[in-house]
Amino acid sequence: MTDGSNEEALYTGLFADDEIASLFGARAQVRTAVAFETALTAALHATGRIGADAKAEALARLSEYTPDFAALEQGGLHDVVFVPAFVRALREGMAAPEAIHTGATSQDVIDTGLVIILISINEIVQRRGHHMLKALEALVDRIGTARMMAHTRMQPAIAIDARHRVGSWATMSEEMLASMNVAANDAALLQLGGAVGDRAAFGDDASAIAAHMADELGLRDPGRAWHTDRQTVVRFASALAVLSGGLGKIGQDVALMAQAGPEVLRLDGGGGSSAMPHKKNPVKAEVLVALARVTAGQVGTMTGAIVHEQERSGAAWMVEWMVLPQMAQATGRGLTLAAELIGQIEAVGQADAPST
Amino acid sequence: MTDGSNEEALYTGLFADDEIASLFGARAQVRTAVAFETALTAALHATGRIGADAKAEALARLSEYTPDFAALEQGGLHDVVFVPAFVRALREGMAAPEAIHTGATSQDVIDTGLVIILISINEIVQRRGHHMLKALEALVDRIGTARMMAHTRMQPAIAIDARHRVGSWATMSEEMLASMNVAANDAALLQLGGAVGDRAAFGDDASAIAAHMADELGLRDPGRAWHTDRQTVVRFASALAVLSGGLGKIGQDVALMAQAGPEVLRLDGGGGSSAMPHKKNPVKAEVLVALARVTAGQVGTMTGAIVHEQERSGAAWMVEWMVLPQMAQATGRGLTLAAELIGQIEAVGQADAPST
Amino acid sequence: MTDGSNEEALYTGLFADDEIASLFGARAQVRTAVAFETALTAALHATGRIGADAKAEALARLSEYTPDFAALEQGGLHDVVFVPAFVRALREGMAAPEAIHTGATSQDVIDTGLVIILISINEIVQRRGHHMLKALEALVDRIGTARMMAHTRMQPAIAIDARHRVGSWATMSEEMLASMNVAANDAALLQLGGAVGDRAAFGDDASAIAAHMADELGLRDPGRAWHTDRQTVVRFASALAVLSGGLGKIGQDVALMAQAGPEVLRLDGGGGSSAMPHKKNPVKAEVLVALARVTAGQVGTMTGAIVHEQERSGAAWMVEWMVLPQMAQATGRGLTLAAELIGQIEAVGQADAPST
Amino acid sequence: MTDGSNEEALYTGLFADDEIASLFGARAQVRTAVAFETALTAALHATGRIGADAKAEALARLSEYTPDFAALEQGGLHDVVFVPAFVRALREGMAAPEAIHTGATSQDVIDTGLVIILISINEIVQRRGHHMLKALEALVDRIGTARMMAHTRMQPAIAIDARHRVGSWATMSEEMLASMNVAANDAALLQLGGAVGDRAAFGDDASAIAAHMADELGLRDPGRAWHTDRQTVVRFASALAVLSGGLGKIGQDVALMAQAGPEVLRLDGGGGSSAMPHKKNPVKAEVLVALARVTAGQVGTMTGAIVHEQERSGAAWMVEWMVLPQMAQATGRGLTLAAELIGQIEAVGQADAPST
Repeated sequence: MTDGSNEEALYTGLFADDEIASLFGARAQVRTAVAFETALTAALHATGRIGADAKAEALARLSEYTPDFAALEQGGLHDVVFVPAFVRALREGMAAPEAIHTGATSQDVIDTGLVIILISINEIVQRRGHHMLKALEALVDRIGTARMMAHTRMQPAIAIDARHRVGSWATMSEEMLASMNVAANDAALLQLGGAVGDRAAFGDDASAIAAHMADELGLRDPGRAWHTDRQTVVRFASALAVLSGGLGKIGQDVALMAQAGPEVLRLDGGGGSSAMPHKKNPVKAEVLVALARVTAGQVGTMTGAIVHEQERSGAAWMVEWMVLPQMAQATGRGLTLAAELIGQIEAVGQADAPST
Repeated sequence: MTDGSNEEALYTGLFADDEIASLFGARAQVRTAVAFETALTAALHATGRIGADAKAEALARLSEYTPDFAALEQGGLHDVVFVPAFVRALREGMAAPEAIHTGATSQDVIDTGLVIILISINEIVQRRGHHMLKALEALVDRIGTARMMAHTRMQPAIAIDARHRVGSWATMSEEMLASMNVAANDAALLQLGGAVGDRAAFGDDASAIAAHMADELGLRDPGRAWHTDRQTVVRFASALAVLSGGLGKIGQDVALMAQAGPEVLRLDGGGGSSAMPHKKNPVKAEVLVALARVTAGQVGTMTGAIVHEQERSGAAWMVEWMVLPQMAQATGRGLTLAAELIGQIEAVGQADAPST
Repeated sequence: MTDGSNEEALYTGLFADDEIASLFGARAQVRTAVAFETALTAALHATGRIGADAKAEALARLSEYTPDFAALEQGGLHDVVFVPAFVRALREGMAAPEAIHTGATSQDVIDTGLVIILISINEIVQRRGHHMLKALEALVDRIGTARMMAHTRMQPAIAIDARHRVGSWATMSEEMLASMNVAANDAALLQLGGAVGDRAAFGDDASAIAAHMADELGLRDPGRAWHTDRQTVVRFASALAVLSGGLGKIGQDVALMAQAGPEVLRLDGGGGSSAMPHKKNPVKAEVLVALARVTAGQVGTMTGAIVHEQERSGAAWMVEWMVLPQMAQATGRGLTLAAELIGQIEAVGQADAPST
Repeated sequence: MTDGSNEEALYTGLFADDEIASLFGARAQVRTAVAFETALTAALHATGRIGADAKAEALARLSEYTPDFAALEQGGLHDVVFVPAFVRALREGMAAPEAIHTGATSQDVIDTGLVIILISINEIVQRRGHHMLKALEALVDRIGTARMMAHTRMQPAIAIDARHRVGSWATMSEEMLASMNVAANDAALLQLGGAVGDRAAFGDDASAIAAHMADELGLRDPGRAWHTDRQTVVRFASALAVLSGGLGKIGQDVALMAQAGPEVLRLDGGGGSSAMPHKKNPVKAEVLVALARVTAGQVGTMTGAIVHEQERSGAAWMVEWMVLPQMAQATGRGLTLAAELIGQIEAVGQADAPST
């Protein structure tokens, strides 16, 4: 959200989600990188590849590490990833520098970090989703027995209880949230492959190291690297876009109900017009529709980024970085707005007979 | 595929999949509609809503029904769906016309038919996928121990056994195929809602009728209509696009391997050039990349069509009709091509040392 | 449109455009290829690179050529393009086979053919667009002075004359059609580059040959090949999608006006419902919205296909083949439907005061 | 670019463009709003609708206006646009508040501001594009006569001079930049419509006011509002995506040339690997490819936003706000990176004969 400087547009707050944005921020990135390296050092020791002293020195470094963000960012601009600069800084002056990062590659660090972030995103999504479902329950209590006109293909059809429409929002959202859980769980995979993804640098200890790390990080070991197999990331993105699309359906319905036609909806709050002060625009409903359209386009771009060539793709990987954080923010923001919007619905009007 | 008339472009055969296309054809559509109505008639009788004579007359009509495709198509142009014309034709002259379609709506027929088609698509996908996995196994036998240069970010990295790369194609594809199974199973839902999706016309028999129909059709009853909750359809589309993307990754890898650089690949077959007869273009690899890009864009459009307004959307529903059949064809075609391409790989060249 | 076989879905006729589809058919493709080769042969003779007898033999071949479509299609499946098979068939048994295709490459033939097709598409678009503008003029005559409620952000605003809304459709469409003309004119470029796009095989005659051919074909010579510079093709696609989007706006407006709320619209015709015979669905309006959404997604895919690597891309080129014909059909179909829909509008209801 | 806080990801600097981002920032938005209102006040006076005193008071207010960004942002969150809050602040305590904003609506202010921003974007694009073209000229001087292998469909074809490939980058880019100029010029339209887009509040003075304002702002008066006719904005977005796509083609070519195969490219600089210090990754080339893919997806979303319903769309308008600033940044960033990348190319390797 803008602090009044010229950094961001005045409308940024409509779409932005600070809590989710911070998950992708520099601080969070470094935190996940430290977690990865800590788990790796422990695993290297557990499998006898480094000694107790080396382990102790490395863990001390990691726990005391204070990032020089400017240097890490410069490193990232040079190497695409901040990991080489990060590892250099950690290892500097160590007696046994090989106790950190040995056998791993930058993508292992970044992708494992991504997975940790995806799990956090899902936690936020579930929490807000639960809140929204509660708001839907309360809405059914408030207006569920009101009669309203069902509309099919934008034409008045047959009168229904409002709880039929609102209930369909709830069951749809519940299932989409469940699907987010599935996607987050499927994506909860340690990334560990080393330079070309074959874990060769770990020799016979590869599986033991991976198992140890996965355990430490609360992830699963898929038994191989997934450097170029992005399906779990894309399915997570798809689950976000589907959920965002569902919120868009709710927003579209509210916008149509708020048209002041035979299907009346009374909102508490709503934006004004500089030319027509009598108007009450269903701002949040509009934002939900907009967010749904944008995430739908983004999921296409994310799906195209599955084509990761050879043993590691630079370009396709960066596409993920540009798109996925925005999708998470848009979906998260949508959940907050939807819960608020649902809470604002005061009444649904009496249904008229269909016009002839 | 063109029959030599001017109907289709000469390149159509590169992308088309006749077996999958026929699943979406008029004949198949009518077949699924007859299955739906047959199950509904049986359920109406089983719940005592129609008598034995009415049932017998209706089932006889349905089993003897010969579609007048031109009339159905005209009906579809007028009403968007062919169902009103179909039901009129079935009911004409019946003593108890209410034994057919009563309580249902066109979308119930079309969407249940879609689900039956999606299941068939998945069967084809699994069969072809199995074939492709066998081809990958054979490829590993053929060239798995050849040394080749791994490439990360399009740069030579470290020499690997070819089975590392080919094996990653196999594990990726296996998981994508498993994900198709999940999506197909999730989508295997009876659509039954009636005019506005609340099953009101069936009164207290709604659940019994739905259970009976689902059983008859080999589907599950989700306990409600999903007229405007398109998530299972979109997830199926996403699984198709993800699989198509995976095939695109294989195609992109082969195209890069076939560049005649330090990473050599010998293909049996491949297209020629009108200007340079010495060239062997990796045609199938190129088609796989193209199909992946097109399906990636389409999944964005499909995801956008989640925003089905109110109790039934015309426009969003039609978007599905335009896009999903093409996605299924593209993915199915890709599987066939990938299996053929993999079978054509004769050798992978000896890895050179990385240039300096 | 389906002939009653199982080849196509019953809803195909909603979206298909036979006139435009035939422009991309095998017969049309061969016709443009013959035109290209005829112009090239004439240019080779005009610049003294072949003699009069060779020219006469080649032109006779070309004018008498009867395509074996099955063989051309087989060639296309093998080589991606049908041109090698086409040239072989033409040259077979010729005394001076070099009088045909010498110095050119398949992409020259296909892309020049594409340009000829784009020009034809634009002619159809302009003709239908003119017809639609006439329908809009008639609509203004019919209902232009009716008072209706303007809606901003889906809320009633201030009463306006209907001609304000309808007039905005007309000015928007006019400008979009003008923009199609610009795009078609910009794309009217001869493609001539030879094997790697540098016209090297023509030596010093390259410019003269290109000028001669461009003149013969009614195109411009851009002075170089544009094998990998796809911007004019993408701008044409964008102009199609923009126009299709404009028609979608008209369709969306009509669908909203037809809601039977305070903003009343009476349509002559409109589809029915199998469950609710009283309903009149604004079928054509819905189709326009659906077509707009689909073409919007497609223009993203087409724009991505600008990345044609090196001197000729197989994959990116094929993406154009899969997407552009569909975009042209969707836009063309939309124009026909929009003109019909506009013609069906009988009345626009008296505006009510905004509800409070 | 991150300042070391957790606000932004460490890779943000790869893709961000601070100069262009600031054009969309709060400060710039307010500046354009002040320009709009100043021009309107002057026009109201010039047409005799306000007196000299009212004009003087209003212009003084506008020139002395110090934005309370937090209040404007709050207003924007409530009303979608900051304009109502902005106008209230300006008018507060004025003797003749009607001298500001009278007859206009928020969308007039925002869209005219957008146009001013688009013009500035194009100026930046042209400046950087010119710089890139200079770099390409220098590159031709440096390596133009080196022999290299042309590649068609990713296969070695025929040896060419490097200037053929590099020259095709230049001519493509030049034309894309020219097309940006056309799009910027076409978009340079005053937005003035008032509440429902018909300029009704200005009565007979509407044209004179618009002409006066357009003149003052250096824009053209299209003679009507274009509240719901977004084609010029979409064409600008398309020109950005086309240019970004062209830069992606250059990036893809460089990445392929840098593969260390028979087509050798030596880069000065390039990123490192944490696992393989010998590697030189063509970072900027990868970023260009990634930016092209992302903008291609975005232009699809922008094109979908053409469907602005009725007299003003909230949702479709917001889609523009979310997408267009990112497209401009991506394209602008791409130009900077491309110029740098081109400057880094030191040598192109001697072409080998095609492998057999």
